[in-house]
Amino acid sequence: MAGSTFGNIFRVMTWGESHGRGIGVTIDGCPAGLALSEEDIQVYLDRRKPGQSRFTTARQEGDRIEILSGVFEGRTTGTPIAMAAFNEDQRSRDYSAIKDVYRPGHADYCYDAKYGFRDYRGGGRSSGRETLARVAAGAVAAKVLKEYGITVTAYTKSIGPIEIAAERFELAERDRNRLYMPDARAVEEAEIYLDGLMREQDSSGGVVECVVEGCPAGVGEPVFEKLDACLAKAIMSIGAVKGFEIGDGFAAAKSRGSQNNDAFRVNDAGNIYKETNHAGGVLGGMSDGSPIVLCAAFKPTPSIAQKQETANRAGENVDIEIYGRHDPVIVPRAVVVVEAMTALTVLDLLLLGRSARI
Amino acid sequence: MAGSTFGNIFRVMTWGESHGRGIGVTIDGCPAGLALSEEDIQVYLDRRKPGQSRFTTARQEGDRIEILSGVFEGRTTGTPIAMAAFNEDQRSRDYSAIKDVYRPGHADYCYDAKYGFRDYRGGGRSSGRETLARVAAGAVAAKVLKEYGITVTAYTKSIGPIEIAAERFELAERDRNRLYMPDARAVEEAEIYLDGLMREQDSSGGVVECVVEGCPAGVGEPVFEKLDACLAKAIMSIGAVKGFEIGDGFAAAKSRGSQNNDAFRVNDAGNIYKETNHAGGVLGGMSDGSPIVLCAAFKPTPSIAQKQETANRAGENVDIEIYGRHDPVIVPRAVVVVEAMTALTVLDLLLLGRSARI
Amino acid sequence: MAGSTFGNIFRVMTWGESHGRGIGVTIDGCPAGLALSEEDIQVYLDRRKPGQSRFTTARQEGDRIEILSGVFEGRTTGTPIAMAAFNEDQRSRDYSAIKDVYRPGHADYCYDAKYGFRDYRGGGRSSGRETLARVAAGAVAAKVLKEYGITVTAYTKSIGPIEIAAERFELAERDRNRLYMPDARAVEEAEIYLDGLMREQDSSGGVVECVVEGCPAGVGEPVFEKLDACLAKAIMSIGAVKGFEIGDGFAAAKSRGSQNNDAFRVNDAGNIYKETNHAGGVLGGMSDGSPIVLCAAFKPTPSIAQKQETANRAGENVDIEIYGRHDPVIVPRAVVVVEAMTALTVLDLLLLGRSARI
Amino acid sequence: MAGSTFGNIFRVMTWGESHGRGIGVTIDGCPAGLALSEEDIQVYLDRRKPGQSRFTTARQEGDRIEILSGVFEGRTTGTPIAMAAFNEDQRSRDYSAIKDVYRPGHADYCYDAKYGFRDYRGGGRSSGRETLARVAAGAVAAKVLKEYGITVTAYTKSIGPIEIAAERFELAERDRNRLYMPDARAVEEAEIYLDGLMREQDSSGGVVECVVEGCPAGVGEPVFEKLDACLAKAIMSIGAVKGFEIGDGFAAAKSRGSQNNDAFRVNDAGNIYKETNHAGGVLGGMSDGSPIVLCAAFKPTPSIAQKQETANRAGENVDIEIYGRHDPVIVPRAVVVVEAMTALTVLDLLLLGRSARI
Repeated sequence: MAGSTFGNIFRVMTWGESHGRGIGVTIDGCPAGLALSEEDIQVYLDRRKPGQSRFTTARQEGDRIEILSGVFEGRTTGTPIAMAAFNEDQRSRDYSAIKDVYRPGHADYCYDAKYGFRDYRGGGRSSGRETLARVAAGAVAAKVLKEYGITVTAYTKSIGPIEIAAERFELAERDRNRLYMPDARAVEEAEIYLDGLMREQDSSGGVVECVVEGCPAGVGEPVFEKLDACLAKAIMSIGAVKGFEIGDGFAAAKSRGSQNNDAFRVNDAGNIYKETNHAGGVLGGMSDGSPIVLCAAFKPTPSIAQKQETANRAGENVDIEIYGRHDPVIVPRAVVVVEAMTALTVLDLLLLGRSARI
Repeated sequence: MAGSTFGNIFRVMTWGESHGRGIGVTIDGCPAGLALSEEDIQVYLDRRKPGQSRFTTARQEGDRIEILSGVFEGRTTGTPIAMAAFNEDQRSRDYSAIKDVYRPGHADYCYDAKYGFRDYRGGGRSSGRETLARVAAGAVAAKVLKEYGITVTAYTKSIGPIEIAAERFELAERDRNRLYMPDARAVEEAEIYLDGLMREQDSSGGVVECVVEGCPAGVGEPVFEKLDACLAKAIMSIGAVKGFEIGDGFAAAKSRGSQNNDAFRVNDAGNIYKETNHAGGVLGGMSDGSPIVLCAAFKPTPSIAQKQETANRAGENVDIEIYGRHDPVIVPRAVVVVEAMTALTVLDLLLLGRSARI
Repeated sequence: MAGSTFGNIFRVMTWGESHGRGIGVTIDGCPAGLALSEEDIQVYLDRRKPGQSRFTTARQEGDRIEILSGVFEGRTTGTPIAMAAFNEDQRSRDYSAIKDVYRPGHADYCYDAKYGFRDYRGGGRSSGRETLARVAAGAVAAKVLKEYGITVTAYTKSIGPIEIAAERFELAERDRNRLYMPDARAVEEAEIYLDGLMREQDSSGGVVECVVEGCPAGVGEPVFEKLDACLAKAIMSIGAVKGFEIGDGFAAAKSRGSQNNDAFRVNDAGNIYKETNHAGGVLGGMSDGSPIVLCAAFKPTPSIAQKQETANRAGENVDIEIYGRHDPVIVPRAVVVVEAMTALTVLDLLLLGRSARI
Repeated sequence: MAGSTFGNIFRVMTWGESHGRGIGVTIDGCPAGLALSEEDIQVYLDRRKPGQSRFTTARQEGDRIEILSGVFEGRTTGTPIAMAAFNEDQRSRDYSAIKDVYRPGHADYCYDAKYGFRDYRGGGRSSGRETLARVAAGAVAAKVLKEYGITVTAYTKSIGPIEIAAERFELAERDRNRLYMPDARAVEEAEIYLDGLMREQDSSGGVVECVVEGCPAGVGEPVFEKLDACLAKAIMSIGAVKGFEIGDGFAAAKSRGSQNNDAFRVNDAGNIYKETNHAGGVLGGMSDGSPIVLCAAFKPTPSIAQKQETANRAGENVDIEIYGRHDPVIVPRAVVVVEAMTALTVLDLLLLGRSARI
């Protein structure tokens, strides 16, 4: 319960540091009978891999996933699925620049405050590399969801001030560019914006949007385990996320009831649906049958090459310059992480809901 | 685990429907030795009471809290603290208008989808009256936090388009008006705005901001139980909340690393602090010693008197008119609910953190 | 998480002290659609009522259960079911004899060690009266289990040295005597034994046996959430229980593999069954289709009228004499408590098992 | 939550099958600052290693533990400690004899009933090899406990009908023989008994006793998370355990209050202690300052070479002969497993208890 466990029924526990032996995750509670291979997971991991464009780091990461247990003759057995990606390259580096200095925007200071010391190699447990385990688990969750006709799709909605336009939205475009933006024109503008930031040794934030389709009404538990509350926690637990919205989000706070309410209607087949979806697919904390739509705001990459003021362990004011290659924006690589956390959450609540009725 | 349980160490379970026997909560895990009386809790409940202004409903609610266990000779014993507010008035009403019709913006349809039927009296379990239990538990949590020098303060930040201005911010003003806005001029404007909406039988959303002061660095657990992730879940679990921000929130997505990073500095006493607080007091999911600042976006009250289109249980398109008095904005009454959920979350993680070191 | 919460899916939280406002329990996670009335629960509570024979105390306890939430139009709604039995008689008594003295065999000393002080009125939270909440919740669990064809039946197996004989076992006899023994001759002997103990101001222990019938194979989770492990915790959590056995229990430790193994066989209908049941219906932590058979050993009532040596809060050696009427044996009243805890456990694992397969 | 997770604060998740890639465990919640090396764990694992005497199997198991995360510069960091023992030898064997046949006394049938199929290689997840992960985690827990002056010591109390005698008890003897019995004479008798069973292709059960010393009073939570209840679950979750006792256990059921009550006394230093320990160190579910004494009854090894009757997947009555070397008694190898589960339980409750008071 020190924080590396997620989920109730479909429960995962992750482990690993940036520059340690590897990164791993164990899933306790995956239903038996799912066809599952390492390749199913690898395709998700490849989407978060660095070095895919000039805006993501060129470091080589040993992201080859191995399934260590829980799959027999190609199917999940219902017992724990352990997975790990071992680090191939573990040679010792020089960490003297960050060993005793608190990088602004990073967790260094908080780790020391909490535990008395920290694994300073590449950020240790607080490194973005930790998300590898989330994506591996999320890939399994997404595959289970597909069995029930539920899909989870995320994309980059904005990078800094550059936002996709609804009228140019084309999902297929997302996979044609390495910013994962479903709008070719926004991609062009964002690339120019990022090139400028890189010249200035600066970085950008951005927004990821995620849509869940095919989810039946009634998923989520009233009061504290509301679907949107659980999604908020899942998404906000991704490092660098500073804001979360479901449906219209903060815009709803400026709206009126007469505009914000979605009318229920009956279609020709006699099924109830919502005519609009300001709610983002969640009412009273339960899915309402419409697509679930959420947004996550990511802060700019805190590691920038500019000289910054900060403090060190000894309690002295010092300057810091962070070397090495760092993504000027982490949003494109985070898209698949948002998908993963969303899939883990929806699946866990879907399974929990199996006990809702006699 | 059907959703009415919150917290790990300081764990609460709530119960009750809008028009049932009452609303209650049990706290399992309150540390022993806290001086506690019903009056400590009542002052919090009185802040969410309806009928305090012309913008909140005039219904009389029986919000007299009783402590049923766990307190002996004026102090908590460490065993469960059960509390309840029993409904004085339980006469039967006429619910035929909403019994079989799905109110837009409400959970009616989702409850039926999940459970097959629902307690339709006044919204049943999905009524805002459920927050009474949160506030009662939160009052206890807040009192424990005070023992450790931690305070939680929320206020109305905006109502519809009317927002408080930083330069006019005065906390004492919050308690002088029933909109709980710490800006006298914004109150005037918001009152005019709300009067207009009431004439149009419409409603408004708004934003609540909450600040935690005195929290030591290191509260929150890495990875999944991050302080901001847990706060997001707690706040998003309040009915009608559609968005959550920590620190700069969505604005951070448009910012640059050089602007968004908060420099660590050392003060004259040799203590480390952050010069700015874009992070909102949380780095890497742990408190960083700065005030924790969060925002919650509330949607407009869905119950409006205008005629609305919707569907009924029988699968027919129908019109609905919702009678009775409903708040044109729930934000002022939600302020204390945000405080309560924040206090419950911070305390739970504070206690959990007691096991962080040998 | 301070200990008064039980179960994962069908989760209960109990509260209340012996001489406080009352005793209660909330169930979060009861499936919707179960027909449920206060009478369904009362019949269970009446079985643990004191004052039914000369071997159980004559105190009048206000065990009238009230359902406070979660049931609408006679059926469970899926939301929390709160129940309470309020104490009618709360006049203040004289507790000076036990206020500062640690009764041997009781939890007084441990409560002071843990919490710094305790509610000493009638044992406070550690009183046997706490089991009322277990029985109320267990009655609901048993009713759900009945919907799935599963029954739970317990009885007194022995009182001190007097044990029921297999050849005289008659379940109907259990309800004809107040020792809840399904063997008329053993009842006679036990009554003589208990009369002797009462004359000597002494008390007796005993054993309760419980049988679950109709449970399908596969209930229970491998490794840590084994059915028998969960049952052991549930039963050992009842005050005064000092031992637990499943199937042959400790006798299996003296047995041989060739004797202890139960042969699987196929019956005429083509179904697999076990020819014998040394295992007590559990293999590898999962139900195996045979009846689940468990035993609980209860220690003698620690409250005896004899003068006893002990210590007090001030750290002095003192003598204590415990006045008031106390059962010379608690086993008969514990029978329904064992049933309740068994039902809660089996139901929780049955519901959890709904997620075992895709 | 499918059963491979244990503990609340010091939480472990285990994975792995008998003949898969390996066996592993992750600890989420180990306090930071503990000196920890692979050697600390290896000494525990070596105690459960097979092939140590003629009564334990000669199979070579690849029980070389590796720490994969959570330890930096020789100390625990507070983040997850992943450990694994990878199987060196994974060549394919012939499992046709057990693939479709349900071995008596094993979990084969239950796995099929629950999940629809199973990993039949060497018992898969239900193999005793799973306990390797428990012992690895338990070794860490035991090391944390030592920091607080708490030790956990188990030994073989009986094998079949051969029991150690109190007057010959010598703990040092335990480590001089491979039956882990602290009584040289009982060892001789047990060896003769086991030799006889081996000739008859049969097996024996036995009892393990475990003593916790140095535990302060007040560990354990009232009602459902009682120390003895949690220990019962932990111990009963070990495969083949059929009974559990705390203190006098089932003997208490035949005792009288005047005999069973332990008198509290005050020693010369002014400290309160219990003169006797019928309670086994637990009163009201909390440690009482006396040594905690528990017993676990193990059934005979179900794998015996004798021909046995059973059923197969196709629903036919068949005979089975189980080849390969199997321990005629698993008790000696289970001693360290009992220590491990006890250490995990006591530590988890000790840490949880840190929140008992303001």
